[in-house]
Amino acid sequence: MSQNPDMQAPADENIPTGEFGLIEWIRRRSASLPKVRLGIGDDAAEIDLSADSGSILVATDMLIEGRHFTLDSATPRQVGYKAMGVNLSDIAAMAGKPIAAFVSVALPRSHGIEIARELYLGLEDSAREHQVAIAGGDTNSWHGPLVCSVTIVGEPTPPRAVTRRGAKPGDHIFVTGPLGGSLRGRHLSPVPRIKEAQSIHRLMSIHAMIDISDGLTADLGHILEESGGLGAILDADSIPIHADAIFESARDGRTSLEHALGDGEDFELCFTVDPADSKRLRSESIEGFKPIPIGVIRPEPGIALGSADGSIRDITPKGFDHFQAK
Amino acid sequence: MSQNPDMQAPADENIPTGEFGLIEWIRRRSASLPKVRLGIGDDAAEIDLSADSGSILVATDMLIEGRHFTLDSATPRQVGYKAMGVNLSDIAAMAGKPIAAFVSVALPRSHGIEIARELYLGLEDSAREHQVAIAGGDTNSWHGPLVCSVTIVGEPTPPRAVTRRGAKPGDHIFVTGPLGGSLRGRHLSPVPRIKEAQSIHRLMSIHAMIDISDGLTADLGHILEESGGLGAILDADSIPIHADAIFESARDGRTSLEHALGDGEDFELCFTVDPADSKRLRSESIEGFKPIPIGVIRPEPGIALGSADGSIRDITPKGFDHFQAK
Repeated sequence: MSQNPDMQAPADENIPTGEFGLIEWIRRRSASLPKVRLGIGDDAAEIDLSADSGSILVATDMLIEGRHFTLDSATPRQVGYKAMGVNLSDIAAMAGKPIAAFVSVALPRSHGIEIARELYLGLEDSAREHQVAIAGGDTNSWHGPLVCSVTIVGEPTPPRAVTRRGAKPGDHIFVTGPLGGSLRGRHLSPVPRIKEAQSIHRLMSIHAMIDISDGLTADLGHILEESGGLGAILDADSIPIHADAIFESARDGRTSLEHALGDGEDFELCFTVDPADSKRLRSESIEGFKPIPIGVIRPEPGIALGSADGSIRDITPKGFDHFQAK
Repeated sequence: MSQNPDMQAPADENIPTGEFGLIEWIRRRSASLPKVRLGIGDDAAEIDLSADSGSILVATDMLIEGRHFTLDSATPRQVGYKAMGVNLSDIAAMAGKPIAAFVSVALPRSHGIEIARELYLGLEDSAREHQVAIAGGDTNSWHGPLVCSVTIVGEPTPPRAVTRRGAKPGDHIFVTGPLGGSLRGRHLSPVPRIKEAQSIHRLMSIHAMIDISDGLTADLGHILEESGGLGAILDADSIPIHADAIFESARDGRTSLEHALGDGEDFELCFTVDPADSKRLRSESIEGFKPIPIGVIRPEPGIALGSADGSIRDITPKGFDHFQAK
């Protein structure tokens, strides 16, 4: 029961309220622990190894039947593919290189083996595309729905892991692909931008980066907050809109731009670079790939949307509280 | 969609049957992947990092309400303590040094925040005792029961990680503490033998090691199987019997020795060393700690139990198939 003096329990025992309150409470308690170079609050954690062994990145995400998917609308193989992909996307958001994945599952007793087999094939499909090994896990069956928790271990690429924290006023903001309407089905087959992130990271300094899981304004909002309370002006005409957003717009009457700004689970990356590097990104393709400039970072907080007619209006980043959501 | 030729899907697509069939099927598919020094089938996986950065150990275990615990008989804080402890025990079984833990939870909507807070305090209690940082995770709420998945990252200690594979005929078998009856309550507060394993590992070559989660005969059976189909003779009078096994014996009429041999969730370690090192372990205490010799490894498969009257009888290692268990 010996205790390292650095690891005493913090005195703060206030009961947190709401999910963000809970996560903030956990985050405060785990802040500044030895070995944790980057802890809770970024896409992946960065952990220091023993002297001279560098660091590793670790990302973890749990998919839950009835919450993140239903087996009526997704096959177990699609669930597996997505469970691996969303974690790979978190490693991509750090410009990291994924190495190995660990999968824990709770399987429904009915058809558990068949579900497990299909789930595993889906996990493997995604892992193989990114040269990741499934190296361990825990398999259980129970009387409940399907739960699949994936943890991925990776390494930062030189010179260091990219975080959400380094955006600067004047930076240009880019995304790696068209946005919106992913719930039409695309959310089940995320394409983690691992190679693209590494290619850009090799050529220039990415100041801040995040993957778009909660929606562009929400996730850009995380960059702005973590970078010290900055703001952004987005160019409405530059936001790349996915065809799915247009279909969704026809269905529900919201504009396709609203879908592109607000919809989650695109798993594209959003990142910022300085104006000189922005110019390079706009003038040449990076290994056949061209990210899309969508706006600039400003010192004043808040996200504003500028339109071709010269009007500018504030748009509020919408968060997602799992405990409030229906 | 580029594929590394080393990572093509294996051709074997037979549908596995039963949990062991499933795990074996997964294991065959993941065998000999690059970077995986030690994959599915040991207490933890060992993953190679980039050149000169050594390797890491990763263990993962999921606890499920109604399966591994009930909130009638265990507090969320106890569940958290156990969830962390069982993973630490897997790192201990490799003589590894744990570094950081990652926790994914599915929280019941009713009292979710209160459960999360208590669960987290329990996780933290155990983590702090072993200088492990909780460095990340994923928090979700849903309409189902509590699910808590923990992944721990650690490092091997010199000269290398201890596996289940190295037992040799003539080795002496040791355990680190008394066994049996843990379901009376002790299973909720596992004491992972991290320091003890490292202390012994520093002094001598541990040939094979495992933590006792499924029961002594079942887990020793894993060592024997992984070491090439060996066997063991245990000395009935040497098996250390926990007081809980005696209480259980009085309750259900099975002998306390049966409980010590068959009950799971003791989270003591079982390991083998050569006779010369066995002599050292029996004659001197290791930093105040004395493991208990219980038998020897023999070339013939099967586990036999020798009694003081000179009789020897075969005992069958009992596995535990999650898909067969009621």
